[in-house]
Amino acid sequence: MPDGFERIAIIGLGLIGGSLAAALKQRGLKGSIVAFDNSAAGLAQGLGLGVIDESADSVADCIAGADIAVICVPVLAIPATLDQFVQFPGIITDVGSVKSPVLAAAQSAFGCVPANLVPGHPIAGSEKHGVTAASGDLFVNHKVILTPVDDTSASALQQVRDLWNRVGADVVTMTASHHDDVFAQTSHLPHLLAYALVDMLSQQGDSLEIFEFAAGGFRDFSRIAASDPVMWRDIFSANGAQVVRMLDKYQAELLELRELIATGDLDKLQAIFERAKLARDHFSRLQAANGSE
Amino acid sequence: MPDGFERIAIIGLGLIGGSLAAALKQRGLKGSIVAFDNSAAGLAQGLGLGVIDESADSVADCIAGADIAVICVPVLAIPATLDQFVQFPGIITDVGSVKSPVLAAAQSAFGCVPANLVPGHPIAGSEKHGVTAASGDLFVNHKVILTPVDDTSASALQQVRDLWNRVGADVVTMTASHHDDVFAQTSHLPHLLAYALVDMLSQQGDSLEIFEFAAGGFRDFSRIAASDPVMWRDIFSANGAQVVRMLDKYQAELLELRELIATGDLDKLQAIFERAKLARDHFSRLQAANGSE
Repeated sequence: MPDGFERIAIIGLGLIGGSLAAALKQRGLKGSIVAFDNSAAGLAQGLGLGVIDESADSVADCIAGADIAVICVPVLAIPATLDQFVQFPGIITDVGSVKSPVLAAAQSAFGCVPANLVPGHPIAGSEKHGVTAASGDLFVNHKVILTPVDDTSASALQQVRDLWNRVGADVVTMTASHHDDVFAQTSHLPHLLAYALVDMLSQQGDSLEIFEFAAGGFRDFSRIAASDPVMWRDIFSANGAQVVRMLDKYQAELLELRELIATGDLDKLQAIFERAKLARDHFSRLQAANGSE
Repeated sequence: MPDGFERIAIIGLGLIGGSLAAALKQRGLKGSIVAFDNSAAGLAQGLGLGVIDESADSVADCIAGADIAVICVPVLAIPATLDQFVQFPGIITDVGSVKSPVLAAAQSAFGCVPANLVPGHPIAGSEKHGVTAASGDLFVNHKVILTPVDDTSASALQQVRDLWNRVGADVVTMTASHHDDVFAQTSHLPHLLAYALVDMLSQQGDSLEIFEFAAGGFRDFSRIAASDPVMWRDIFSANGAQVVRMLDKYQAELLELRELIATGDLDKLQAIFERAKLARDHFSRLQAANGSE
């Protein structure tokens, strides 16, 4: 039970770390929350908002005496952060969008994936950034994926599961490599495609005029191109091999569609659109069942 | 002034034709509206809803005695429809998503682009179909693009402009080829990219599971893959050359991004994402100014 935690350490007090802290506070967590962040201003805001109880001056200070540490730093900063956990006896978890590199970083820092490490990924976010955008309801009805390994402590896994359940999330487990494969397809590739389209249009001579006439379809399609460039640079670095593999499949699909358009094979084109529409309608029903579309 | 029209003929009583009729009725049009559609059920629904005054049994019956005819049939059905207008003395306009083929069809039917033809494209739509989804406010604050030629009658152009202004739309004029170029980029290509991604994912062995974990980014990105397959097949047929040209540019941009990911050139990757984000943020501000985002 999260109530069992007397001291929760949060490393990285941005939108996710701040929202987790706010969510736990809202739900009457009895223990205290201590946070470290490279931004002193962010820590001061977190204290001011009352989402954390204490700020720390370093990772080491932050995790000293904590039962559990939640690493909420950008994906590429996780390895250097994990290096500071070698002596930490509590539970370690993280919120990175790519999971295999977390296992690799643990292997490098600890010589193995330690039993007290439970890698995680809450499927929640916002176009807003920072602790000032934190919301105690960010995880309600959202999925959190945990990617334990064979040696992961069952007790640690259960306690991390309870932590996320407590803030309203549904917890699912899968292997890190399966996670990275799934998200390369449903999240990383779409972001890349949206960035590519908006960038291409912005390089056209008449880009301002083009955006003037873009309508709702373009608006929805391209919204994710407004996502944080640094965060996404990190994700494409951390999950590069999977993304490249999916991108190659995607480009092959585009070439097939190009051929159908160029040769006027309208029946096949329509059949592919119908198949896609069926799949998208299926997804809509899933979303509607979750109250999100 | 639209009030000058005593009889408006609408060919094709779907979402757009039905919404135009409903909008004119709502705004106190004094003349009568007569419609023809291949679907007798759709015509009956239109009469039942009170958006039209009369139904006709054929295009010829529909346009007999009308001051203006608005062709609201699918893009690929426009040429056969135009063939029936050779003797029509009133104003002809249409709502097709691709404009150059309308000029070509006119050339073929009339031997020239007649002065009374004002090709048009309202930038409005919905995921819903048919006259039962018609809304009298569909065009409010939406753009309508008209693509006259040098020989187009100034009076016909003004009357079509007034018609759309009357239902709340902002009218813009440009050449048909410029229209088709702009929309290949901001509408047709994004639809193709969304269809391609959803189709690719639906062909993966674990597609159901994949959709289970897809989140808001995927939802927004892929929404347009639920669009009408026949309508979009027609658009890609009618604007194929422009779409293929843009798709080739897009594939080149994807290859560049692939190379940056594969070689780990994170600085360049971030720079492209930042450039795209700037452009998307610019688009957001345009949309916000129009109250749409």
